[in-house]
Amino acid sequence: MEDLSFIPDIPCGPLGEYRNSATFNWKRLKLSLEGDIELLKLKYKIWQTLERDPLFAHSNVTPPVEEEKRITQLQLKRINEYKFYTAETFRASYSKRTRALMTINEAVNSYNPSVSVKMAIGIYLVSNALLSLGTERHLKFYEATILNREILASIALTEIAHGSDAKLMRTTATYDPSTRQFVIHTPDFEAAKCWVGNLGKTCTHTLLFAQLITPDGTNHGLHGFLVPVRHPATLEVYPGLIIGDMGEKIGVNGIDNGFIMFNHYRIPRENLLNRTADVTEDGVYESSFSDPSRILGAALENLSAGRVGIMQESCHSIASAVAIALRYAASRRQFGERDREIPLIEYELHQWRLFGYASAAIVFRLYVENFTNIYLSIVEKSNSGERVDNLSEAVGEIHAMVSCSKTTLSWTVLEAIQQCREACGGYGFLKCARIGDIRSNHEPTVTYEGDNNVLSQQAGNWLLRQYQAAINGNTVDSPLGTVAFLKDYNSISRKAFSCTDTSQLKTVQFITDTYKWLLCWLLKETHEKYEAEVTKGLSKFLAKTKSQVYRWKTLTRVYAEYLAIVFSVQSIAKKERELKPVLYKLFYLYGLWSLDKHLVELYQGGYGKGDLMARLLRDAILELCGELKGEMVSVADALAPTDFILNSVLGKSDGNLYQNLQTALFSNPDTFGRASWWREAVARPQAKL
Amino acid sequence: MEDLSFIPDIPCGPLGEYRNSATFNWKRLKLSLEGDIELLKLKYKIWQTLERDPLFAHSNVTPPVEEEKRITQLQLKRINEYKFYTAETFRASYSKRTRALMTINEAVNSYNPSVSVKMAIGIYLVSNALLSLGTERHLKFYEATILNREILASIALTEIAHGSDAKLMRTTATYDPSTRQFVIHTPDFEAAKCWVGNLGKTCTHTLLFAQLITPDGTNHGLHGFLVPVRHPATLEVYPGLIIGDMGEKIGVNGIDNGFIMFNHYRIPRENLLNRTADVTEDGVYESSFSDPSRILGAALENLSAGRVGIMQESCHSIASAVAIALRYAASRRQFGERDREIPLIEYELHQWRLFGYASAAIVFRLYVENFTNIYLSIVEKSNSGERVDNLSEAVGEIHAMVSCSKTTLSWTVLEAIQQCREACGGYGFLKCARIGDIRSNHEPTVTYEGDNNVLSQQAGNWLLRQYQAAINGNTVDSPLGTVAFLKDYNSISRKAFSCTDTSQLKTVQFITDTYKWLLCWLLKETHEKYEAEVTKGLSKFLAKTKSQVYRWKTLTRVYAEYLAIVFSVQSIAKKERELKPVLYKLFYLYGLWSLDKHLVELYQGGYGKGDLMARLLRDAILELCGELKGEMVSVADALAPTDFILNSVLGKSDGNLYQNLQTALFSNPDTFGRASWWREAVARPQAKL
Repeated sequence: MEDLSFIPDIPCGPLGEYRNSATFNWKRLKLSLEGDIELLKLKYKIWQTLERDPLFAHSNVTPPVEEEKRITQLQLKRINEYKFYTAETFRASYSKRTRALMTINEAVNSYNPSVSVKMAIGIYLVSNALLSLGTERHLKFYEATILNREILASIALTEIAHGSDAKLMRTTATYDPSTRQFVIHTPDFEAAKCWVGNLGKTCTHTLLFAQLITPDGTNHGLHGFLVPVRHPATLEVYPGLIIGDMGEKIGVNGIDNGFIMFNHYRIPRENLLNRTADVTEDGVYESSFSDPSRILGAALENLSAGRVGIMQESCHSIASAVAIALRYAASRRQFGERDREIPLIEYELHQWRLFGYASAAIVFRLYVENFTNIYLSIVEKSNSGERVDNLSEAVGEIHAMVSCSKTTLSWTVLEAIQQCREACGGYGFLKCARIGDIRSNHEPTVTYEGDNNVLSQQAGNWLLRQYQAAINGNTVDSPLGTVAFLKDYNSISRKAFSCTDTSQLKTVQFITDTYKWLLCWLLKETHEKYEAEVTKGLSKFLAKTKSQVYRWKTLTRVYAEYLAIVFSVQSIAKKERELKPVLYKLFYLYGLWSLDKHLVELYQGGYGKGDLMARLLRDAILELCGELKGEMVSVADALAPTDFILNSVLGKSDGNLYQNLQTALFSNPDTFGRASWWREAVARPQAKL
Repeated sequence: MEDLSFIPDIPCGPLGEYRNSATFNWKRLKLSLEGDIELLKLKYKIWQTLERDPLFAHSNVTPPVEEEKRITQLQLKRINEYKFYTAETFRASYSKRTRALMTINEAVNSYNPSVSVKMAIGIYLVSNALLSLGTERHLKFYEATILNREILASIALTEIAHGSDAKLMRTTATYDPSTRQFVIHTPDFEAAKCWVGNLGKTCTHTLLFAQLITPDGTNHGLHGFLVPVRHPATLEVYPGLIIGDMGEKIGVNGIDNGFIMFNHYRIPRENLLNRTADVTEDGVYESSFSDPSRILGAALENLSAGRVGIMQESCHSIASAVAIALRYAASRRQFGERDREIPLIEYELHQWRLFGYASAAIVFRLYVENFTNIYLSIVEKSNSGERVDNLSEAVGEIHAMVSCSKTTLSWTVLEAIQQCREACGGYGFLKCARIGDIRSNHEPTVTYEGDNNVLSQQAGNWLLRQYQAAINGNTVDSPLGTVAFLKDYNSISRKAFSCTDTSQLKTVQFITDTYKWLLCWLLKETHEKYEAEVTKGLSKFLAKTKSQVYRWKTLTRVYAEYLAIVFSVQSIAKKERELKPVLYKLFYLYGLWSLDKHLVELYQGGYGKGDLMARLLRDAILELCGELKGEMVSVADALAPTDFILNSVLGKSDGNLYQNLQTALFSNPDTFGRASWWREAVARPQAKL
């Protein structure tokens, strides 16, 4: 057994009884969720380093947005100085160094998403893109960004009037052969690049996507350019640019999102990221003869890196929120019999409200950890030029997986955080509970890196192609095997609910089989609806828009849940024996709790009928809630970061709820004493009533 | 026709096409939703008064919480000075003056809930309670609060360790006959009164609920006391009290929620609110011989006033959020064919995401307006001593209605606001979109005045009593008629889905019949589950806890939706002819969209089976979305307050989305220019790359 003494023990306290009832060691579960002891050690090293540094001390009161930006920038600088990403890691394999970057990102995300997102955009994503879209001449920028941290950059894609639809973007980069420069121009405010993280006040360079136009007037579509925007020593904006900050947002106010307008702004020809295409000095556009597998790998990485990051961050946000709510549920007592009050966690309704999300926190984490390894190994192989069978098919499948998983995870986590807030009652509404901040900072993930409703449609495109192949008797292009079951489409579609006892539902078999049936039925429904609309004379575009509600949208959601199920159960099978009972129970709960949301489709499609299916499914869910009650405080311990990082008065590991609350309330500088503005506040001169 | 020229016209702009497609005049709909032209005029008067007063100018940036408290207090004082609640209204009938107070509250709520909640708690609720719990000797406090605005008060009930369970509260008021005083004492921090709005920094009196103990040591339970806590002229806290502020919250930070601990703090005997019971000078506890109907009316008012207020405020929050999202949906174009971009509102998925909530905004408003009148007339009659048949039954029914309606409305509105935020994409995440603030400020309504999950259980108690009466062949106690249909329990339970065409679903009959069936089935399910648990040997308390999930909780939700349906359709029937077509369509959409969430129960209980029920229901919903598309911008106009009050860059009535966005971004003081902290932000001395 590995030495886990680097994980601090939890102090004794009122939650001891619930901890004693767990069937497993929470530190073993924590390690198991991380998947790698070195990465877990790195996380604790980061958490403990931040805890010791006063620059990272928590504030009782949200500072004004300008101050939040300042602190976030200073914290990012300090993290750069700590060099958690070492020169040695920099020289390691792609998978290894990327896992390290991901782990640092996750650790910082648990502390404060503004800092991690600022870092992820300005350092990780930009340097990745430089490596994959650029060539040798851009390596110095790559090293300056990721290794030496001399550059903080940004990525400028979205325009004021165009978000998801990249084709219609209007910022141009026109090549001028007389000076060998690109001239970048923004026709009007509607074409200003916007939402650019780090651009508002801090970055010195931006990775700009603009329509490349050659001197002959031909538009070659969106290309990437590295554009200097501020003087690194003075942070003064260069002439020819208008840069502004987007102002206050619902969350992540430490990030200076900005907009930018270019007025015939010139950059050297070499700043075009020219891996796939270049413009000669004379202004001729040339596609590069590059290794096609590398291009695919690069495309995959650029499409997916940010979204995989959101999946990982979502796992950490739900972990923190659920840990807070579970510990609170075990400490807070309300109502009871004969004046013996009962902890909230004993109430079935409270279990049902929280445990489904707790199981999601575990299943998502197992899924994302497993998926990340597969994803990295494919990108690594393709980057290395190694031959990968079915690479383009694998890229398509991974893109579909990421598109719907980013969507489903980020939405489920948003719901989870909200439920956790409500489950903590009024105290959940306090800033010092931290659930509000977790929520506000998680909130943008459902919109950025592809709006969830738009992004998930892309997974549907891929799924329907595979469905058509299957029903036409052709091979399904599913190198990762996520829809390999479609070859059995006919036999799966004939299946029906036949359980007579809840024990039959609490099985891997029932859950995966039911999901397969659901996917088959939803594919058929979606396909038929789409075809019917086309037959009515609608264009493909419009037919697709008429197939979203109840079909396409549900299909991609169910596919994402199915992925979480398949990849997490794969992972559970390899875990140590002591952990399996609790992991399987959590898995069953997640599976059945998720299926509960699709009972209508199971009835409508005739998988089940009458009373029994819903009754057994729901009984099984409530049974699992009861069986898991004694495990949940230890599950919370395995999910939670350190108390300092969790930073919640309700979620402290010692469980001394009211003492902690008193300390928090009493230590706020504005708690006691008359308001400084009392003179203005007095109602009016009056007699004492 | 009434002269509606006091409602400002909407400027011409890009939304004109959608406005022209509406079948009705939006001002007529607005009046119809308000129900009373004088109240609508009062609202516009308030909105226009605030718009002209620089004290109410909006801020681009959220101020620090201390500053928010200061501004909120000054705004409340200013509103008091404007005397929107006139001395004349003060002398009007109970119904009339209460409607005026409610309207003022709604108007201010649309501007900023911190101000309205501060006012509602500190002035309206307190003065109501003084009137209904107190006697003649408390009238001077009543007038000082509501009429002269000399007192800003608060209500202290919840304790640190006890929220919903009033029985176990531990703050005591022990009568001392030697000084004819009550001695108020807080045994420890866990018994501190907390969450008390206005207590943190501003109020001078609190209406305290404490266990009344007579000299013989008998505890007579919770009683109300008016307790002076701060000197009105200096706002200094009186000796013997520890008062603190609860600190920063997720929203409504303009309200100074506070906690208080009493150290043998003495108040005169006369400060007991003694309508129902008093303590003699010698210390003998005496129930008052008061008119029992008045007591019931008072109890009803005290239980319900805050919750009815939340229902009204919820209607205004959803109206604002939906108006913003609908106007944005009509202005924002994305994707399309042949580069002709299509407004979001044209997409079926977008319609489906928003229109259900838009219909809820209309139906809720009609329901609450209708219900409020019934509620006020019953309270008024009972207060006046007039004989009301079945008063105690009516009080029980109204309490059940309010308990589940406050719950269902506040939750649905929270979901609506979230959906509106997401439907506005990234721009919805900007503070200047205002949806984030609407959400944060609405958020506490699901917790306060009774946590939704706990409060709704009370409606279930009442419903199950009526069910048992019905199945035992006894009379149902439903003076308002909300469950009068239970007398036909057997015939309703035998009904089944028999439609063959969507037109049959788009009827009042189908929707109400289906709801009645659902209620009957859920009552039976809940009752049987509860009885089964009792039979197993569980206590009533525990049996109830085991009947919540999928039963009790669903039952009360369905009952609340049914109430909205019954009372709104009653109201629609009386509306002017021009408005009926759109109102019925909105009603059908709300009804079917709500039933869609209960399809599982409709299948499980055998109301319908196989494909047809879900298919027709969902087809009907999508048909209604299509039919309502041309109406929705005008529906938004009818729901929205003035542009100043709505205060959303995305929701301005002119529809000039990008110009408004540019103005908003450019007018923020921190948009342009180098950060004042740029020296700290520079990465490190480096060459220009």
